[in-house]
Amino acid sequence: MSDDVEVAPADVLDLPVRGEDGGIAPEFLELVSRAIADSDADVLRARVHGLHEADVGDLIEALQPEERPRLIELIGADFDFTALTELDETVRVQLLHQLPPHVVAAGIRNLDSDDAVYILEDLDEDDKAAILAFIPAPERVALLRSLDYPEESAGRRMQTEFIAVPPFWTVGRAIDYMRETDDLPETFYEIFVVDPAYHLMGALPLDRLLRTKRSVLVTAVKTERSYVVKASEDQEEVARMFEHYNLVSAPVVDDAGRLVGVITVDDIVDVIQEEADEDLRAMAGVGSDEELSDTVAYTARGRLPWLLVNLLTAFFAASIIDLFSDSIQRMVALAVLMPIVASMGGNAGNQTMTVAVRALATKDLGSHNARRVVVREVLVGLCNGCVLAVLLGAIAALWFANWQLGGVIASALVINMLAAGLFGILIPIVIHRFKLDPAVASGVFVTTVTDTVGFLAFLGLASLWFRG
Amino acid sequence: MSDDVEVAPADVLDLPVRGEDGGIAPEFLELVSRAIADSDADVLRARVHGLHEADVGDLIEALQPEERPRLIELIGADFDFTALTELDETVRVQLLHQLPPHVVAAGIRNLDSDDAVYILEDLDEDDKAAILAFIPAPERVALLRSLDYPEESAGRRMQTEFIAVPPFWTVGRAIDYMRETDDLPETFYEIFVVDPAYHLMGALPLDRLLRTKRSVLVTAVKTERSYVVKASEDQEEVARMFEHYNLVSAPVVDDAGRLVGVITVDDIVDVIQEEADEDLRAMAGVGSDEELSDTVAYTARGRLPWLLVNLLTAFFAASIIDLFSDSIQRMVALAVLMPIVASMGGNAGNQTMTVAVRALATKDLGSHNARRVVVREVLVGLCNGCVLAVLLGAIAALWFANWQLGGVIASALVINMLAAGLFGILIPIVIHRFKLDPAVASGVFVTTVTDTVGFLAFLGLASLWFRG
Repeated sequence: MSDDVEVAPADVLDLPVRGEDGGIAPEFLELVSRAIADSDADVLRARVHGLHEADVGDLIEALQPEERPRLIELIGADFDFTALTELDETVRVQLLHQLPPHVVAAGIRNLDSDDAVYILEDLDEDDKAAILAFIPAPERVALLRSLDYPEESAGRRMQTEFIAVPPFWTVGRAIDYMRETDDLPETFYEIFVVDPAYHLMGALPLDRLLRTKRSVLVTAVKTERSYVVKASEDQEEVARMFEHYNLVSAPVVDDAGRLVGVITVDDIVDVIQEEADEDLRAMAGVGSDEELSDTVAYTARGRLPWLLVNLLTAFFAASIIDLFSDSIQRMVALAVLMPIVASMGGNAGNQTMTVAVRALATKDLGSHNARRVVVREVLVGLCNGCVLAVLLGAIAALWFANWQLGGVIASALVINMLAAGLFGILIPIVIHRFKLDPAVASGVFVTTVTDTVGFLAFLGLASLWFRG
Repeated sequence: MSDDVEVAPADVLDLPVRGEDGGIAPEFLELVSRAIADSDADVLRARVHGLHEADVGDLIEALQPEERPRLIELIGADFDFTALTELDETVRVQLLHQLPPHVVAAGIRNLDSDDAVYILEDLDEDDKAAILAFIPAPERVALLRSLDYPEESAGRRMQTEFIAVPPFWTVGRAIDYMRETDDLPETFYEIFVVDPAYHLMGALPLDRLLRTKRSVLVTAVKTERSYVVKASEDQEEVARMFEHYNLVSAPVVDDAGRLVGVITVDDIVDVIQEEADEDLRAMAGVGSDEELSDTVAYTARGRLPWLLVNLLTAFFAASIIDLFSDSIQRMVALAVLMPIVASMGGNAGNQTMTVAVRALATKDLGSHNARRVVVREVLVGLCNGCVLAVLLGAIAALWFANWQLGGVIASALVINMLAAGLFGILIPIVIHRFKLDPAVASGVFVTTVTDTVGFLAFLGLASLWFRG
């Protein structure tokens, strides 16, 4: 097939999956690519089938788009579709579109419902319908019910497989039931006690179950848990609850209080990660859905709106400078020095804003401490403003051999650092109070303030001083 | 005591702990403050003792510093010291310093070892020694051993309470052992199989244990797990592993492969949150240990270094402008427009850098796809550069009634957007390759590049064009 050295079976099994940098090793990728080109299902089954789903996911992303469906079809029924939940959305949607719907249907039938929903939810309606048509009615109805919940809600993230027992069972009977039943969820950390209409009565963590004598009734040892999730609840709220109360699993109920599913911490870890990432990206003006595998056109279009907004604010700042063009013409040093005042304010404002945005997201900043934090930020701005003003003023004065210029720029810096502290904290708080996401919009406003105040204070003071 | 309306017991129990914004409700805080002032231990026990540790933690932070130790002393032996793990470091260290060492020692003796270590680790040596002196030798030695591991290592985060059984036990015997032993860890998700020297042989998740018949040997059903943590490993690496392989618990071994503890996902959730936060803060130049409860002086000092570095780069950019002071004097429009080119480049560079920093942190960006991502970022810069250049050029030309000026600024913007894309991705990659944290240092370099290129391209092109 190729004139490269033949890879002997022993080598095939020995090649490490990951390279030193933690990514898929190039040699391993090469081996898989060649096996796909050779339609060598044996090598693929030997090397890919046993891997963890997360590793298979990374491998698929590293392959060329046309190799991906071939890999899955060659491995056949042995392929674990859970790996698809580890893919970037773009890659997943494209791959599922390339695969025959009956193959996808067969693959996702074996998964826990949360994984199946995760795989289906981003597909376009045609692809989704084609796949669902190959799934038997009862399972299809269950999937459609989960898909009916709003995007990013607990209902989408829950798995509908769980163990629920009636209150009159003993611990022993519950354990026997689990020993005898094959169709249990893949992993679980607690079982639930429900009434005949499936209203949640309590939960029983496995460690507690194991520590209790067989003859005890499950109702006697169930937890009086107040940590119940509504299916319609936003996943970020759920994540906050898991994090706050150190949960590993929580029951999900519908509006009538009936148990409909369970959310486990592994899904929540992803949500927490995503949420922090979203704040970071929002502050830089990158869309929360941008992925490394996106095309140039898609990425460029996604980032353009933020740049356009910034163009607008940049023009606003320029128009402030324009007001003082006479002063600049008389003293070019002003043009040389003015970006320093604006940029220092921008950096200080950004520091304050970053702290505020995260503290608001984690609810560490609220009405109980807002006043104290605002005062602190203003004072921090004042302190650092004074320190930096002495430095900046001295250097500017020496550079242009003009002590008055040093005084003017020092004063302007103090004013701008004060503004940076004040608006860096107030703008996110106000945006948050209007129930908007402070991470998205704060940056523009804060930069506009620090640019405007920076140019206005420096050029304004200079005009007054050197004219007067 | 006060002439406010007396709070009747029923009301005391009804008052909600949290207000609408998710923080501690002001009425509840008021109630607790008054009870502390009145030394009313009954009200405090009734209202605070039953709360979740996370709520108690938030409550303590909301109290005045002098009220905090009083609260703990009034509740006495009923106070759950786990709540202290939920506090900001500054508040915790201060509070522990205020409390008598024997009270702290009695409180942390009841905790799982990971919580006890967490509470002790940040104290100064004197306070730590005073508390440890009140703890009996065997427990003290165990705590000291954990404290011997490096900061932020798995050894610090693990709990040393776990269940280990010999390989010749049956599932039934293991379950009976758990039923009969009182001194079990507070919560656990798996038990471990070890040889007589405590070398780890495998793990047995509780759900698997429950599904297995009593007569089966534990070795027959133990997992062949490859997810073992070394005690010296960095907690970020551990978090990455938990996240990647969806773990809830992992055994920790020493250098000789002996089981020394277990790490659970609730500790890891905090690490993941912290890590994303650290990137965000590092990019804004805020120290990772800064907390909302820090003083003005401490906060200001922490943020100053970054501002000093920025002052330096701002001076560098200013010196570029200074090269073109003649051109600016002849055409003040250049001074008005130049910040636009620099700021647009800065924003675009920041977008690219943010994506790169996070992708490097999550290992989504590595040698296997670096080339493709670099090319993508440069092309994105080119695309958006062209779109924005048309707009910026047209507006500038109209504003100053000078089509040549429009052409010059449009060309300069395309150049700077290209530089932003290229250096926005290359700088974090290079820093990462030198094993440094790209989140910390990338920002300065990228801004320096976009400022320099921005001013140089615009003023340089303008000088050439209008002189020639």
